[in-house]
Amino acid sequence: MDNIPARGSHTRLDSYVDRYAARTAGMTASEIRALFAVASRPEVVSLAGGMPNISGLPLDVVGAAIGDLIATNGPVALQYGSGQGDPTLRDQICDVMRLEGIEAHPDDVVVTIGSQQAVDLVTRIFCDPGDVVLCEAPSYVGALGVFKSFQCDVVHVGMDADGLVPEALDQAIRAVKRAGKTIKFLYTIPNFHNPAGVTLAPERRPEILRICREHDILVLEDNPYGLLGFDREPIRALRADEAEGVIYLGSFSKTFSPGMRVGWALAPHAVREKLVLAQESATLCPPSFSQMAVSAYLTAHDWQGQIKQMREMYRERRDAMMSALDDFMPAACAWNRPEGGFFVWVSLPPGIDAKAMLPRAVTARVAYVPGTAFFADGFGSGSMRLSFCYPTPERIREGVRRLAGVLESEMELRETFGATSPTHELDVRSGYNSPGTDLG
Amino acid sequence: MDNIPARGSHTRLDSYVDRYAARTAGMTASEIRALFAVASRPEVVSLAGGMPNISGLPLDVVGAAIGDLIATNGPVALQYGSGQGDPTLRDQICDVMRLEGIEAHPDDVVVTIGSQQAVDLVTRIFCDPGDVVLCEAPSYVGALGVFKSFQCDVVHVGMDADGLVPEALDQAIRAVKRAGKTIKFLYTIPNFHNPAGVTLAPERRPEILRICREHDILVLEDNPYGLLGFDREPIRALRADEAEGVIYLGSFSKTFSPGMRVGWALAPHAVREKLVLAQESATLCPPSFSQMAVSAYLTAHDWQGQIKQMREMYRERRDAMMSALDDFMPAACAWNRPEGGFFVWVSLPPGIDAKAMLPRAVTARVAYVPGTAFFADGFGSGSMRLSFCYPTPERIREGVRRLAGVLESEMELRETFGATSPTHELDVRSGYNSPGTDLG
Repeated sequence: MDNIPARGSHTRLDSYVDRYAARTAGMTASEIRALFAVASRPEVVSLAGGMPNISGLPLDVVGAAIGDLIATNGPVALQYGSGQGDPTLRDQICDVMRLEGIEAHPDDVVVTIGSQQAVDLVTRIFCDPGDVVLCEAPSYVGALGVFKSFQCDVVHVGMDADGLVPEALDQAIRAVKRAGKTIKFLYTIPNFHNPAGVTLAPERRPEILRICREHDILVLEDNPYGLLGFDREPIRALRADEAEGVIYLGSFSKTFSPGMRVGWALAPHAVREKLVLAQESATLCPPSFSQMAVSAYLTAHDWQGQIKQMREMYRERRDAMMSALDDFMPAACAWNRPEGGFFVWVSLPPGIDAKAMLPRAVTARVAYVPGTAFFADGFGSGSMRLSFCYPTPERIREGVRRLAGVLESEMELRETFGATSPTHELDVRSGYNSPGTDLG
Repeated sequence: MDNIPARGSHTRLDSYVDRYAARTAGMTASEIRALFAVASRPEVVSLAGGMPNISGLPLDVVGAAIGDLIATNGPVALQYGSGQGDPTLRDQICDVMRLEGIEAHPDDVVVTIGSQQAVDLVTRIFCDPGDVVLCEAPSYVGALGVFKSFQCDVVHVGMDADGLVPEALDQAIRAVKRAGKTIKFLYTIPNFHNPAGVTLAPERRPEILRICREHDILVLEDNPYGLLGFDREPIRALRADEAEGVIYLGSFSKTFSPGMRVGWALAPHAVREKLVLAQESATLCPPSFSQMAVSAYLTAHDWQGQIKQMREMYRERRDAMMSALDDFMPAACAWNRPEGGFFVWVSLPPGIDAKAMLPRAVTARVAYVPGTAFFADGFGSGSMRLSFCYPTPERIREGVRRLAGVLESEMELRETFGATSPTHELDVRSGYNSPGTDLG
């Protein structure tokens, strides 16, 4: 590991700058990424990341299950597998989805490198440059990155405390169609939304499906947090009531281990065939080793009991976040009370720019993600995402206390000197506007 | 795992057929893929697959190393990692590359899901539809699939027994430029070529680099088999003599375990940055778990001694293949003697179509890959790829004996009745022709 040559001989200019594909213009470092280096310093309370807290996992059980896997089935686990994924794991994935009312056949499941890769493969097979993808406002930063990298036009659709607003969806679809553009799918996170923290109300679900059916719009249902509800049984998936018009994405990253990178797509049969071809082109096959490790864990362990423990642990953190927000935040702030998942969305007092404020927050040893990261169109500067998944309840409380202090100072400065950020953006969305309130 | 619903309710027609992206037209099942189901029957000797023989791996060492990893470093191995890949593993990758004369910095390495994903990511960041990729004739089927799926035009460049022909490369570049098209890179497998079995002669290497430098063409050096030479020390990589104009791809799939899906790209710094962004978009990050498992194996085991054993095992199989070809094949066939790797390329007697003959070969319980799989342009019907990596020497000999029998029957039929295949293709390449002989 020594003898690493000095870097001086490298030119730091990009001699390839004129040669990249047009799609690379959409590949830019996310705001979350830039934060990672800073927020990982121990003195900073990071309310920014979305890393699950896996400290409760039974490492002895995991280690034993994997040791047993290598001993009894090593030559298979270490060899190439099928492009579609391990058949036993796909069976088990159907068991997992059954908890949300989905009756699926393992042959319609494709295993992916986390559900991130499922978003990538679906976009790859459906989207030409200029095609429109409908997303909630705000939406998951990682999915927006994929859509940008495939040169899609993202059109945001308004949400409120009950999730995606059906009327806003209908109007957005009509507006896009009037503009002569092609909508390839609606990307939606119905449960415990990242970043918004809200859940699509059960009574809205048939309505969303009806609108999409009426307009012949495919639904991409991304559900990484579905089993992490705090107060009730898993909510019935959109896919449970619509098999042909929905591609469902799931993941073991939040219910077991993100380091395995095992997610999946459940798709209508013809789409599934295309996804397998895309997976073979992208990776030949997902890793047998981590798929079989997940499978062994599911077999060896009471994984549902483990998820129950996780739900309780995250609920405690959600509660710590809620009390701290109540106790410390300035009155002009507003937020929702997430019923599951990792995140809460905070609307800031008028005139406060979350992105401009971030360096001052980090100086005060607290980090968050500015709302702009979750919009494709520059909107969101008056909001931020706070995550309660990773820090302890005490650290969450301390982080919110620090954040409230930073906010108070910003508001005082603003009262004394006017706007703190000379480039403060107007809170209006470009492109197709929708009537939905923005998580107020 | 029970309660799997019947499939009767699914429609088998593709209601999405009009909605896919243009690039899906290039995503078709490869000929290798269609073979897998058939060739995996135990009575068939498969000379078709490219699966490494991992039966010699010390499962006890692997199991102990991974058990230890989970026990001591489980919370890291099971968590999200960096998009670029595990830093310790990237250090170790630099050690591996040093065996081929490459002095690299771990910061210029990006870990990928096998080197297949490295081909995918490089193509993703460089290639717009219609861009030209230069490939050897024949070339690796998995790479051709990627180039097709990104709507590239593949232009094949001739090889002979000493690998890629410099004059053919120069002429191909000039012809493409005259046609007004943009070449994004040369994709080449210099060592123990898949499928051709040949190795780029050391004296040609500076010449290939000079031509690419002169025409400002990036080189994508794919080297999965480089450490599996039978008769000599590892050959100096192209990248060892040209840091700015070469992206080097490596993999642990052939020297340790394909089921880990751990490969890498070593790229000029600016390109590396783009590759990390593409990796984050594609998967967020490669699996921490399998990266750290590979890293633990490299630390715990004499991996170079293990590779030496593999080389001896594959050499024995190459020798079995060579004697069997000598002993059984009709005189009008020709083949090369691979100095490493997994494959030998066989040219068939005039008029024999390897693709048309395949069903008869499988009936005779032997499988191979027809040469057409390795060309983007329909060429190659008079050739086949035989692999000697997986079956035992005895099975290889028996497989070649069966294959020779099928060939003899074809030749007899042909003599008696004329061409056996009504759609036999002419042995000329479409598109830019090159003067290189085709591995005759």
